[in-house]
Amino acid sequence: MRRYALKWEVGHTNDPGVDPEVMVHASVPGAAQLDWANAEGWPEYWKAENCEQFGWMESVYWIYRTIIQKPGIVAKERLFFRCEGVDYQFLVKINGVVEHGQEGMFTPVAIDLTDKVAEGDQLEVVIFPAPDSGDYSQGRSEANASVKPAVGYGWDFHPRLVSSGIWKDTYLEIRNEEHIVDAELNYWVEEDLSRVHLDLTVELNRPSAGSIQWVLTNSKGEVEEAQSVAIEGQRVIAMNTELFDPYLWWPNGLGKQNMYRLTLSLHDEAGESVSRVKRRIGFRRVRLVHNPQVWDEPSAHPKGRSVPPMTLEVNGATLFCKGANWTPPEIFPGIIGEDTYRPLLEKAKGAHFNMLRCWGGGVVNKDSFFDLCDEMGIMIWQEFPLACNRYVDSPEYLNTLDQESRSIIGQLKVHPSVALWCGGNELFNASSKMSDQHKALRLLNRNCYDLDPETPFLPTSPIMGVGHGGYLFRDMDGVECLERIQNSRFTAYVEFGCSGVSPANYLKTFIPEEELFPVRPEGSWKRHHGLEAWDQEPGSWLCLDTIVDYFGRPESLEELTQYGQILQSEGYKAIYEEARRQKPYCSMALCWCFNEPWPTAANNSLINWPCEPKPAYESVKQSCRPILASARVSKFSWKGGEAFEAELWILNDSGEAQRGGTVEAYLQLDDEERFALAWDFESLDPNENLMGPTARVVLPRIEGQTFQLILRVESRREWNSRYTFCFKNED
Amino acid sequence: MRRYALKWEVGHTNDPGVDPEVMVHASVPGAAQLDWANAEGWPEYWKAENCEQFGWMESVYWIYRTIIQKPGIVAKERLFFRCEGVDYQFLVKINGVVEHGQEGMFTPVAIDLTDKVAEGDQLEVVIFPAPDSGDYSQGRSEANASVKPAVGYGWDFHPRLVSSGIWKDTYLEIRNEEHIVDAELNYWVEEDLSRVHLDLTVELNRPSAGSIQWVLTNSKGEVEEAQSVAIEGQRVIAMNTELFDPYLWWPNGLGKQNMYRLTLSLHDEAGESVSRVKRRIGFRRVRLVHNPQVWDEPSAHPKGRSVPPMTLEVNGATLFCKGANWTPPEIFPGIIGEDTYRPLLEKAKGAHFNMLRCWGGGVVNKDSFFDLCDEMGIMIWQEFPLACNRYVDSPEYLNTLDQESRSIIGQLKVHPSVALWCGGNELFNASSKMSDQHKALRLLNRNCYDLDPETPFLPTSPIMGVGHGGYLFRDMDGVECLERIQNSRFTAYVEFGCSGVSPANYLKTFIPEEELFPVRPEGSWKRHHGLEAWDQEPGSWLCLDTIVDYFGRPESLEELTQYGQILQSEGYKAIYEEARRQKPYCSMALCWCFNEPWPTAANNSLINWPCEPKPAYESVKQSCRPILASARVSKFSWKGGEAFEAELWILNDSGEAQRGGTVEAYLQLDDEERFALAWDFESLDPNENLMGPTARVVLPRIEGQTFQLILRVESRREWNSRYTFCFKNED
Repeated sequence: MRRYALKWEVGHTNDPGVDPEVMVHASVPGAAQLDWANAEGWPEYWKAENCEQFGWMESVYWIYRTIIQKPGIVAKERLFFRCEGVDYQFLVKINGVVEHGQEGMFTPVAIDLTDKVAEGDQLEVVIFPAPDSGDYSQGRSEANASVKPAVGYGWDFHPRLVSSGIWKDTYLEIRNEEHIVDAELNYWVEEDLSRVHLDLTVELNRPSAGSIQWVLTNSKGEVEEAQSVAIEGQRVIAMNTELFDPYLWWPNGLGKQNMYRLTLSLHDEAGESVSRVKRRIGFRRVRLVHNPQVWDEPSAHPKGRSVPPMTLEVNGATLFCKGANWTPPEIFPGIIGEDTYRPLLEKAKGAHFNMLRCWGGGVVNKDSFFDLCDEMGIMIWQEFPLACNRYVDSPEYLNTLDQESRSIIGQLKVHPSVALWCGGNELFNASSKMSDQHKALRLLNRNCYDLDPETPFLPTSPIMGVGHGGYLFRDMDGVECLERIQNSRFTAYVEFGCSGVSPANYLKTFIPEEELFPVRPEGSWKRHHGLEAWDQEPGSWLCLDTIVDYFGRPESLEELTQYGQILQSEGYKAIYEEARRQKPYCSMALCWCFNEPWPTAANNSLINWPCEPKPAYESVKQSCRPILASARVSKFSWKGGEAFEAELWILNDSGEAQRGGTVEAYLQLDDEERFALAWDFESLDPNENLMGPTARVVLPRIEGQTFQLILRVESRREWNSRYTFCFKNED
Repeated sequence: MRRYALKWEVGHTNDPGVDPEVMVHASVPGAAQLDWANAEGWPEYWKAENCEQFGWMESVYWIYRTIIQKPGIVAKERLFFRCEGVDYQFLVKINGVVEHGQEGMFTPVAIDLTDKVAEGDQLEVVIFPAPDSGDYSQGRSEANASVKPAVGYGWDFHPRLVSSGIWKDTYLEIRNEEHIVDAELNYWVEEDLSRVHLDLTVELNRPSAGSIQWVLTNSKGEVEEAQSVAIEGQRVIAMNTELFDPYLWWPNGLGKQNMYRLTLSLHDEAGESVSRVKRRIGFRRVRLVHNPQVWDEPSAHPKGRSVPPMTLEVNGATLFCKGANWTPPEIFPGIIGEDTYRPLLEKAKGAHFNMLRCWGGGVVNKDSFFDLCDEMGIMIWQEFPLACNRYVDSPEYLNTLDQESRSIIGQLKVHPSVALWCGGNELFNASSKMSDQHKALRLLNRNCYDLDPETPFLPTSPIMGVGHGGYLFRDMDGVECLERIQNSRFTAYVEFGCSGVSPANYLKTFIPEEELFPVRPEGSWKRHHGLEAWDQEPGSWLCLDTIVDYFGRPESLEELTQYGQILQSEGYKAIYEEARRQKPYCSMALCWCFNEPWPTAANNSLINWPCEPKPAYESVKQSCRPILASARVSKFSWKGGEAFEAELWILNDSGEAQRGGTVEAYLQLDDEERFALAWDFESLDPNENLMGPTARVVLPRIEGQTFQLILRVESRREWNSRYTFCFKNED
């Protein structure tokens, strides 16, 4: 198989029957919008309010063109046009004649051109205007009849900017006239982990004779299994084998990320290899098992059901999932690549995360994302592209969803990191009004069961017993996130946020100097989600009133951002650590959100676009250490004369027992460090938290706006922790 | 197609390689156990403790035999052995050679005998011992790896008696050598109900030429649609059409039960009809829609999901479902027939029921049941044969479940009465410990979606927001069912019970005279579930302590049964009417249970086996009238000097508006009738309940043990109601 690059140009037209007036150079993979902006010399879309310039682009037809330079092919060879993905509805034309039409960006295209094109022929990809099921002003609901990610229609961290273009690779490909079209590998791991049962199904383009050979090598390059199966006129060939004492794949923190390589080839009757497919694969058994105590409830009649399982068990070991919600790392999916993913995923791993929830509002990531997650042991909760809408039950939509979901499952299921399928985001809540009865979700459950039955499936998030929100340090009703989480009882917290303003130096990169300070509810601050971003809180995401309440009115951009970041950092610490204290009833803590698609002025993200960690990132990293000394404190703001109380804990996700020791608690008040309590704790069982005594100190009057609680663990400095609180002298 | 009966005999053996010592006459359809008991002249299994005699029978092989008397067939004809169902795992042998092996009682068998048998050959059906996944003492859990109904392994209303035998019809059938194997009809009703879209798929035994003709006639015999489709070598032929202005099928109380007849025939190239299939079918659109108010909850963060939809909408009209849980009407499914079903279903219709829940512990009913439900407008909530077990995820079990569920769906989906599929009973509660993740339930959801996508599917009952229980007039914690239901808030009550003793004359038919009174916790009373039936209440189902508490110790069997029946009658009235008061948040009231498989001494049933209504049946019938005056009273037992209070209501499930009127409330105290209140109520909107004032009377000291509340509606006597309460003078 040989591949040849294609050179594209792109233009737009309001009428697909009328040629574009101007064609410009197209970067493929990429986005039509960016090609046009580049050609026109527009300023960066991510600065100030420049993105508004792109509004008209979602209503036009984008036409990509290339001229075929036909590579030499010999007898028994075929020339294919291969395109891995076009965003979103499109036609492929050869010299103006439609060869293929498709709705859906996740299903690749392969067209046999051998007998259809001559040197110099024109190949076109005609992309329709962005899908819109109804009224423009409806925002994301325009996406409720398509498998187009809804986020582009505008979200509280994403401008309205609907991407369009050839977003994955295109090339000409020369294949043997008999070749492998698809190879599907399914496996299941024996209860005692001693064996992997492998089923391999190879689909050829036509009935053939010869043989199929496949070789499975481990990460040391040793051949583990090899088979050759004679074929005599079959088109679909099913094979199976068993792999004894497999090297299993483990998530980050639990073991090695062992992988295998599968090489599969079709040999003709002369024994010559004529088509080959390579796959990297890892083996693990993942299950959702019930959290302890759930069977005790409900206890009285009339009795509903018990809450569903939300504890992940990997290779027989249950684990607490720490992580975050992944949002699209760019507005334009076509410009995302491994170099986008790698630094972000390194940060995730660096924060001791073992799970990311790939949220249904965004695009399904490219292969390199999952390759990296496989390597780093980061488990993926993968949602289909449904979010916060009542998706229709029409045959047209269901057909597209069927095609796209099958493509997505087929692409992702070889990755051991993909641990959980989910229908989409918040579909069973008032903002969507869907239910288990909707065909879209029954179809997704069906397809996941048919194609990847060993991986758990959730219809949506949240399900019963699982919590979403809040998203503010202090809620509209005045409740702090510290108190809210301490009064909650959920099997998993899979979306919780603390909004935080971006660092001052970062803000200066995209907000014009004259707008920077003081903050006004307009212009770039608003456009970049600093104000009026979330309809439930006009102050979102900056939440200036909250900052002023705790610290007084900031006098500079630097003061503002410093105060805001204390709130985000301390809020996230309180939530992650409280969720861990609620283990094992609680089994997951995933914040909203990890990253962002463009520069935000304020957001719940831990990392600014493209990969600039905010101070809260470092705090979360501390709270997610496998073992740490932790304090449970009921509130953030204190006054002189009040008795400050902190319940001491050791939080422990380590799989190994730990000897006992001593935690000392101190208060850092102005320049003075005051001893509060020493706790001699017993040895720790693997994965077990330990609750200790409560340190209690009557606070003196101090000068500073903040004070700190410091926990020091004798001879285990890596377990030390530090918390900042707000101090307000009585007026 | 011609059919010929078969004559069977049956015997048993411990070793399938050794012939039975004795063969006896077999009734087919029937049960091997009953044939044996009849031949041996045993007393009735349903009297006293006689059923214990049958214990050994579940461990043997039952062998059915028949001698083939070969009917004359001509060229182009084939002779088939057809068996509609064998309970449970079996082989079919011809002259001792295995022709077919099967696990599962719901999948028919058709074997082409033409070239395999000669006159006088022997046909055998060898049935394996009852399926048992583990330890005998485990009871129903022995059924957790099979699709055998669990109820036979013993339940709180069913003795341990595991049925076995050919439980559906068998015959020899002569078919043309080209014939229709299966005809599948799917349809969906247009949103505005103006059109039905029909898809018809005909499967032939082999590729054929000629034509497929089909005719759809309405209930007046008029041809609505007719088509002839030429076939040229296809084996599977798909056709579709549209039916305009269809006569829709409506549930009892909402409209007519319109049905159609489909006649489908295969014609050979000469135009001669060679194979024919007839189906009766009705068209309706049924959906589960969300109950009002559910989107308001949850309101605070962290936020779980909203409760799932539980309101049935039929042809665009939502309705309140009134009904009961259907249990197997016989221990031996083979002896159930239309004559079993008809009187019971007439009672259901007579009680104004519009729904029966065919509970997952029991057998899936035969065609005649669904034909009658179609005719009477009784909607069926159909569960698959899973109940109160953690069914395994093994490939063997899943294969059987796949086969059996496909057969069940195929059999039932043509019936408009089948309104709701459900995976099984109480699978997501502590007694089963299953969840949405179990493959059995994902498989059932998948099969229902693939084969009958227009009918809603529930994974189990109860789901979130739906209540099961309680089952006693007064709970173990002393709470009466009146109070319990008034303090509950569920979208549907789909299992609630009030146990009640059977009438004295009925008890005398199966409890030996010497055991009748006083009741002792042994012998026939215990065997027939009067005592120690339900592990959560030793007094179940008689609940003698409760009776004694309210009425004092009964001095005769007649007194005992009279008191017990007051409790059951008044308890059920209170629950049904309170559930109706909670409309529209609540949308279903189904009691546990309607009928029973054999005579019980006490049980939650409304109707004793085989079809003897208990007094509670009449009470429930009153409470389920489309319109009635109703009283909400907080408790059952009152004392002199207490202020008796009754909140007056009109409960209204009628689809038509009603003019206003007057309700008068009276108390019947000893011989005196005391006026309490007159309520002039406004006109009623369709389907809307009306809450009125509270009648309040300070109770005098009376002589009787009971008193009554009487509601009289001026010039609408059919809305009148009457409630009995217990009176206890102070000691």
